[in-house]
Amino acid sequence: MPYRAPLRDFTFLLDHVVAFDQVRQTDRFSEATPETTKAILTEAGKLCEEVLAPLQRVGDQHPARLENGVVCTSPGFGAAFAAIADGGWLGMTADPEYGGLGLPQTLATAVNDMMSAACLSLQLAPLMTQGQIEALEHHADDTLKARFLPKLNSGEWCGTMNLTEPQAGSDVGALRTKAEPNADGSYAISGQKIYISWGDNDFTDNVCHLVLARLPDGAPGTRGISLFMVPKFIPDADGNSGARNGLRVVSLEHKLGLHGSPTVVMEYDRATGWLVGAPHQGMAAMFTMMNNARVGVGVQGIGVAEGAYQHALGFARDRKQGKTPVTGSGAIVEHADVRRALSVMKAEIFAMRAIALANSVAIDMARATGSDEWTARAALLTPITKAHGTDIGCEVASAGMQVHGGMGFIEETGAAQYLRDVRVTTIYEGTNGIQAMDLVGRKMMDSGEAAFRMLQDVEDCAESARALLPDLAENVWQAAESLREATEWLVAQDMQDRFAGATAYLRAFARILGAHYHLKAAMAEDGPRRALARIFITRVLPEHIGLLAQARAGASALYALSDEDLAA
Amino acid sequence: MPYRAPLRDFTFLLDHVVAFDQVRQTDRFSEATPETTKAILTEAGKLCEEVLAPLQRVGDQHPARLENGVVCTSPGFGAAFAAIADGGWLGMTADPEYGGLGLPQTLATAVNDMMSAACLSLQLAPLMTQGQIEALEHHADDTLKARFLPKLNSGEWCGTMNLTEPQAGSDVGALRTKAEPNADGSYAISGQKIYISWGDNDFTDNVCHLVLARLPDGAPGTRGISLFMVPKFIPDADGNSGARNGLRVVSLEHKLGLHGSPTVVMEYDRATGWLVGAPHQGMAAMFTMMNNARVGVGVQGIGVAEGAYQHALGFARDRKQGKTPVTGSGAIVEHADVRRALSVMKAEIFAMRAIALANSVAIDMARATGSDEWTARAALLTPITKAHGTDIGCEVASAGMQVHGGMGFIEETGAAQYLRDVRVTTIYEGTNGIQAMDLVGRKMMDSGEAAFRMLQDVEDCAESARALLPDLAENVWQAAESLREATEWLVAQDMQDRFAGATAYLRAFARILGAHYHLKAAMAEDGPRRALARIFITRVLPEHIGLLAQARAGASALYALSDEDLAA
Repeated sequence: MPYRAPLRDFTFLLDHVVAFDQVRQTDRFSEATPETTKAILTEAGKLCEEVLAPLQRVGDQHPARLENGVVCTSPGFGAAFAAIADGGWLGMTADPEYGGLGLPQTLATAVNDMMSAACLSLQLAPLMTQGQIEALEHHADDTLKARFLPKLNSGEWCGTMNLTEPQAGSDVGALRTKAEPNADGSYAISGQKIYISWGDNDFTDNVCHLVLARLPDGAPGTRGISLFMVPKFIPDADGNSGARNGLRVVSLEHKLGLHGSPTVVMEYDRATGWLVGAPHQGMAAMFTMMNNARVGVGVQGIGVAEGAYQHALGFARDRKQGKTPVTGSGAIVEHADVRRALSVMKAEIFAMRAIALANSVAIDMARATGSDEWTARAALLTPITKAHGTDIGCEVASAGMQVHGGMGFIEETGAAQYLRDVRVTTIYEGTNGIQAMDLVGRKMMDSGEAAFRMLQDVEDCAESARALLPDLAENVWQAAESLREATEWLVAQDMQDRFAGATAYLRAFARILGAHYHLKAAMAEDGPRRALARIFITRVLPEHIGLLAQARAGASALYALSDEDLAA
Repeated sequence: MPYRAPLRDFTFLLDHVVAFDQVRQTDRFSEATPETTKAILTEAGKLCEEVLAPLQRVGDQHPARLENGVVCTSPGFGAAFAAIADGGWLGMTADPEYGGLGLPQTLATAVNDMMSAACLSLQLAPLMTQGQIEALEHHADDTLKARFLPKLNSGEWCGTMNLTEPQAGSDVGALRTKAEPNADGSYAISGQKIYISWGDNDFTDNVCHLVLARLPDGAPGTRGISLFMVPKFIPDADGNSGARNGLRVVSLEHKLGLHGSPTVVMEYDRATGWLVGAPHQGMAAMFTMMNNARVGVGVQGIGVAEGAYQHALGFARDRKQGKTPVTGSGAIVEHADVRRALSVMKAEIFAMRAIALANSVAIDMARATGSDEWTARAALLTPITKAHGTDIGCEVASAGMQVHGGMGFIEETGAAQYLRDVRVTTIYEGTNGIQAMDLVGRKMMDSGEAAFRMLQDVEDCAESARALLPDLAENVWQAAESLREATEWLVAQDMQDRFAGATAYLRAFARILGAHYHLKAAMAEDGPRRALARIFITRVLPEHIGLLAQARAGASALYALSDEDLAA
């Protein structure tokens, strides 16, 4: 099944569900008119369908490889990256002063969704570069900006993030990479970094690494970490790639999926780097970058879910098995259990896409208006988008395999690749457990205020839907009320008890948000939208009851079992 | 982490949870004394730990391959199969008249669980052979039995099942393989079969295929199908492998996992076969074999879950990240969300293992006593064991990867292999959707009588637990009552509405059974057993509420979306 960009869904969501109009009405994003929006999505969709989607299997079957210290990428990936760059998609949301297009994040989210669906392993390269552009815009000085941003926006160079070390994964503060001042104001960076996505390639003139390292006077832990720009080639006087820097690719990981994306181990040996932001403020800079990268990773999950869904639906409409209840065509899509699986997959994608777009609208509104409420809304939704988007990615990819029956397990079918590729998204950019802890911890330092405001929106919407869709409205209202009670309970607990229920709480929150956006869709349009909303609200939403019970179960029972009991 | 056989769990489950004593008290299985049981489990555990477990990664890294039409198996697999055969494990439950040990299925289930955990790709070979032995015992005539059973029980030969054809997967009745009578009473079998697990090997003297085919006078559909024994080599006058038969391996599938297990496409070209059972009664014979093979596949899921759990726990106890709340050791097992994941994994395995063992006890009691009630109990539990056991296999394997963080995505860690290997178990031997349809369809032809009897046991047990564990008992009782109501609703619906809720209903049933067996465990022993039961009943059991809502959602909403709407 060739991928088909879901343009109608995006337009409907923007117009009727996530209120993109308010973004257009800001001065900053006034150029994102309905016409421009349509043109952008159409063009991106075409690129994804025609250029990226054919590379999905290629990357899997001809993985990136390391030859004499040089990464050789999968056939066609270089040309496709150039096509992405030429379309301006790398610098979509970037500052026009340095060659960006200055468009809203919301549109970038839609484009990233399509690119992820078409070819996740390649899409990761632009995503990393976008994250780097954002970090530099926020934290780099003007010299660094002028030197790097135009090349990154144009795609002549690309960017990576270097956080993890073998002993320092989720605990970034344990890192050992050192930065020693040079006489000229630059720094000598030494250390090893692992899990560097697109850590090298053979198609851009330079690879720019943002590296977390510790200055000689840096305190232990996260407070003593600084951020550095360390390019593969040091820019010369003309701003072009110059001398080779002191860094090298040590090895390439052999991964479950994403074979087209080279994940490398990097070694820095007194490599020249420049400080990005203030000394010892590296974590703050990294968080800027990570927050939006987290939305981007959640969107990867949605994109893959869409790809896997289309693939499975195509199969189910073609594959004949036995007598079928409706037309008798024998196509397995007519069997109730297969239809249930596909309908739920579609409803899940719609719900999750709405959450990610609403999150992006909040990011845009925060940027355009500086409003604290929008900033808090964006911050609240980010771990939900990341964790639930990637969970849904895995679940829908797995369900898609299942629809294929025996063929799903055979690699040539292509269904298994979606699962293999997307499986990392629940892990990288902060595991989904870390996201859940972020939601119930850091994002509820406001005593849950942002969460309660969100729930108020959900309940207000449900109230206004009561006349037209009384049963659906009541279900959503009741669920929101249960989530409100659970949130009140949660913010009164200590961190251990919050963390013990964090994963279930995050998922419950996502279920209620999904139902909320489905209800909005059902209000805006009768027919298939309303039928899909009914499927989500009657079949998926009730999951929140069990989840909230788990969210409130507390930590003590978990520690009643000792480590030895767990091993017994 | 080397695999460690969970012998204490098996002994506890047999003695205190699934009432294995009643099996021992039958004449047929009186030899399965506590001492014998212990000796059997200990010996099997040792074999799994020492011989099978070291092959788990070998099979993945050195897959079976096809060379000049000959399957070459992974290094060490031949010797390990011989060790399994020498231990008598192939014919564990088989008729002693033909070299079997005549032991209860319940013990075979425990042994298969351990073998699956240690090396799933190899374990599939004995599982297929066990299924064939059982089919021959039930349906073959004495000549065939005498010719094949001793060699299968001894492991000199091994067995396969040939059901699927490219156009006939779940719809077996669409098969095209032909069987034409020869003058000597044998048949000439011609056709192609796909997805034949362990369809060939280079370590047994013969490979015996049970093949579904249609006689010239066979009606279309499933009523016209017969079962044939078609060996690779035709037994000679002395009973040894003789002339090459007219069959060949056409190709080997390239699969997501189970690389050590050769999955082949077989071609039969007027191969000599013998009828097993009566003409046109092949489906009945196949169902005998499949029913217990379904239990076996469910147990594969449990075994892999155990392997993945041990692997993840070992990692979590070693891996240090950040400050931890309990001892401050930094081991990630102390973090609440990681501990939650591991505790739930352990609780799921315990629950699912209890269900599979209870299912096996019912099989044994039905065999030993001929009781209709036990037969119905075994039939009711079989689709639950198959579908939920394999679902839990996938979920726990995926959770195990997640515990590993970034390392989980790297193949060398070994965590991803559990997920790749186990993923097929939800598909083969009847997809889990088919299992759910079997549960709400065929298994409720009795108007739910067997289900209501099971629920009565659950409620009686909960009643008797009220004094000691009032809150847990109440939770289980209430859940059973909800399932009773849902079952009453279900049996009053037509098949379309049942099928539309089948998957959710099956999972809800498994949740309530799991809670029931955990409650039994908690009654029998305080300490860790009770703590684990509390985790299951407070965290996992509440899932049934959402599931039962979905089980009762009906089919109409699913068909409110047209095929085109699904594709829009």
